Order: sequence, then structure tokens, then C-alpha cells
Amino acid sequence: MSTVFERELEDLKGTVLKLGSLVEKAISDSIKSLVERNSKLAADVIDKDPQVNALDVEIDEECIRLIALRQPRAGDLRLITTAMKITTDLERIGDIAVDISERALELNEEPQLKPYIDIPRMAEIAQGMVRDALDALVKGDSALAREVLTRDDMVDNLNWQVFNELLFFMIRDPKTVSRAVKITYVSKYIERIADHATNIAEMVVYLVEGKIIRHMAIPGAK
Amino acid sequence: MSTVFERELEDLKGTVLKLGSLVEKAISDSIKSLVERNSKLAADVIDKDPQVNALDVEIDEECIRLIALRQPRAGDLRLITTAMKITTDLERIGDIAVDISERALELNEEPQLKPYIDIPRMAEIAQGMVRDALDALVKGDSALAREVLTRDDMVDNLNWQVFNELLFFMIRDPKTVSRAVKITYVSKYIERIADHATNIAEMVVYLVEGKIIRHMAIPGAK
Repeated sequence: MSTVFERELEDLKGTVLKLGSLVEKAISDSIKSLVERNSKLAADVIDKDPQVNALDVEIDEECIRLIALRQPRAGDLRLITTAMKITTDLERIGDIAVDISERALELNEEPQLKPYIDIPRMAEIAQGMVRDALDALVKGDSALAREVLTRDDMVDNLNWQVFNELLFFMIRDPKTVSRAVKITYVSKYIERIADHATNIAEMVVYLVEGKIIRHMAIPGAK
Repeated sequence: MSTVFERELEDLKGTVLKLGSLVEKAISDSIKSLVERNSKLAADVIDKDPQVNALDVEIDEECIRLIALRQPRAGDLRLITTAMKITTDLERIGDIAVDISERALELNEEPQLKPYIDIPRMAEIAQGMVRDALDALVKGDSALAREVLTRDDMVDNLNWQVFNELLFFMIRDPKTVSRAVKITYVSKYIERIADHATNIAEMVVYLVEGKIIRHMAIPGAK
């Protein structure tokens, strides 16, 4: 006996998940385009970004419509405003996948510096963080959201590991500098994806537990 | 003959501006701590970040309260949801000022690579973008917001200029690599501040003109 509004809220969550899937695919494809040196795939990620942007706008409009029309109470209202904020994070993750693809296009033009090992590992963790943070949103599972927060340090550590390894390349052979710096950028981009996933997870904990854990002294919070 | 709600909306704008001022100060102090090699100032910026975070939470709570209590109509509702999103951008700019301060602390421990010239110029542009985007919000001035968007390319170009100059240092003298890479990070951080200001300006145009210009083919939009 769900009301029209309850169904609308379910649909809204579904649309956020759809945006999440698009963005997850953009992350994995951008990394694949780098690791497999597939510039066609990198161009595809860039071409598909407007789909992400369109869905971002659609969700925003739907949230405004629901608030204006249904005048939701505290809990539902928080769900809707949280959806609006989460959508902004997802859209920016999409932009970062475009950044990674642009670096892939450049790096694919030059000889490969070394096989990519840590970068795909980092990306896999970051992508899993995005997926689980959205899963936590839809299920209202704050324990899962809190668990996502603990993974941010793994990504940060891998980012430093990549940085130090590439520093070694650059110091030993100046010819590698341009490529190596671009790879440190990719590593930084992935770290930012993990930061966005952390932001989403913090908002989910806030939504579910009604507590402000953003900015508190918990792993990954800043 | 303003109503209580109209005064509450003015207060809300005032609080967003207050957060904007805190964040602007954090940007300029973080850059100053780098340029003047003042590690005490860098530590100050890091210590003051909780003030930014507290104000972010306060604005969020006030927005939720206003929506629930006043059931605002379309225009006011958009203003409030936009304020919530803008606040998130401002809080993250505060985080970036912390990142810059952390790099300043590290760089101040080593001999200076070269005088900083483009970095403070970039930071000044980015800071002006933040200030004017918020000014545009408060005045409902979409022309100003659109003008802010055009400045993003200047920051992007300076970022590439800094990058290329530092690349030259790194290639010529491997001993500079660690410092030079950290300075490219600072340059990237400033570019991200400009991106956040661009996001804010796009939201203001959207709010004022009721049009979605986010993601459209305008300078700086992505």
C-alpha cells in the first residue's frame, strides 16, 4: 500500500543508482583505456559524459519538483536534499573519468613507461567505494557507509606509493618526467574519486543516523 | 515590510557570505604561507578549518529547517537548495586551502626552488572568482556570474604554464623533482578552487535565469 510519493522516492533512488552505474562504467573504462592503451575507449568515455550531465540535471529537477509538490517531512526531505548533493558528487566523478581519459589519450601516444599495477588496484577500490556508498544510500545501511570510509586511507597510501615510485623514475631518467608526471596526475584523480565516495558515504551516515559525522575525527573524514 | 521568512533568507545569504569570507582568507593565507615561507601561518590555516566545517553544517541545518517550516515556493526553494550545494563547494575549497598549507609546510622545510610568481597570480584570480560568484548569488546578478565563468580558462592556462616551467627544472636537475612535483600539486589545487568557483557561478546563473547552463558549451563549463 505504497503511496504515489513513496513510489516517487523509490524512482528517485533508482535514477541515482542509474547515474551511479554510468559513472562507475566511466571510471573502469577510463582506466582500461590507459592500461590497455585503447584510445578509442578513452574517446568513448569523453563522448558519453553528456549522458552523465543530463541525468544530473534530471535528478535535480525531480528533487525540486518533489519538495515543492509533496512538501515532504523531515526524513524524506533529508533524503531528497541528500540525493541532490550526492548527484553533484557523481557528476564530478564523471568529470574526473574524462580527465583520466584525456591523460590516457596523451600517454597512449608515447612509449609505455612501465606496466600499470597500482593504478588499476586503486581505481578498483575507489570504484567499489562509489558502488557501496550508493548501495548504503538505497538500503539505508549506515554500517556499510561507515565501512566505505575506512577504505579511503588505502587509496591515499597507494597514491603515495605510486608517487614515490614515479619520483624514482624521474630522478633516474629525466626523459621519463613528462610521462611520469601525467601518471601521478591519474593517481591523484583516482584519489579524488575516493574522496567523492567518502563524501557520499558521510552524507549517507548523516541521513540514516541523523548525526553529523561529516568533519568529525573518523577515518577518511576531513 | 519584509516578512520573517524574507529576513530568514537574507540571514541565510549572510551566513553563506561569512563562510565565503572564511574560505577566501584560508586561500590567501595558505598561498602567503608558501610564498613567504611562513609555516606558522600554514599551521593556522589547518587549525582554523573546523570553523569552516562548523559553518557548513550550520547552513545545511538552517536550509532544512527553512524548507520544512516555511514550505517555500519555487524561486525561494531553488535559492535554498542552491545555498546547500554552494556551501558544499565552499567547504571543499576550505579543504583545498588545507592541502595547499600542508604542501607549504613540506616545501618550507627545503631550500626554495625559485620565487613564486605565477602561483600567487593564479590564486588571486581563483580567489576573485569565489568572491564574485558569491557576490553574484547575493545580488542575483547572473551577468557577473557569467563573467566569472570566463576566467576559468586563465587559471587553466597558468596551470599549464607552471607545469611546463617545472617540467624544465625537473628534466635539467633531478634533485629538484620532489619539490617541483609538490609545486605542480599546489598549482593543480588552485585550478580546482577555480573549478569550484565555476560550479558556484553556474549554479547562480541557473538560479537567476532559471536555465540549466551547467554542462552547456560555455567557457569553463564541463
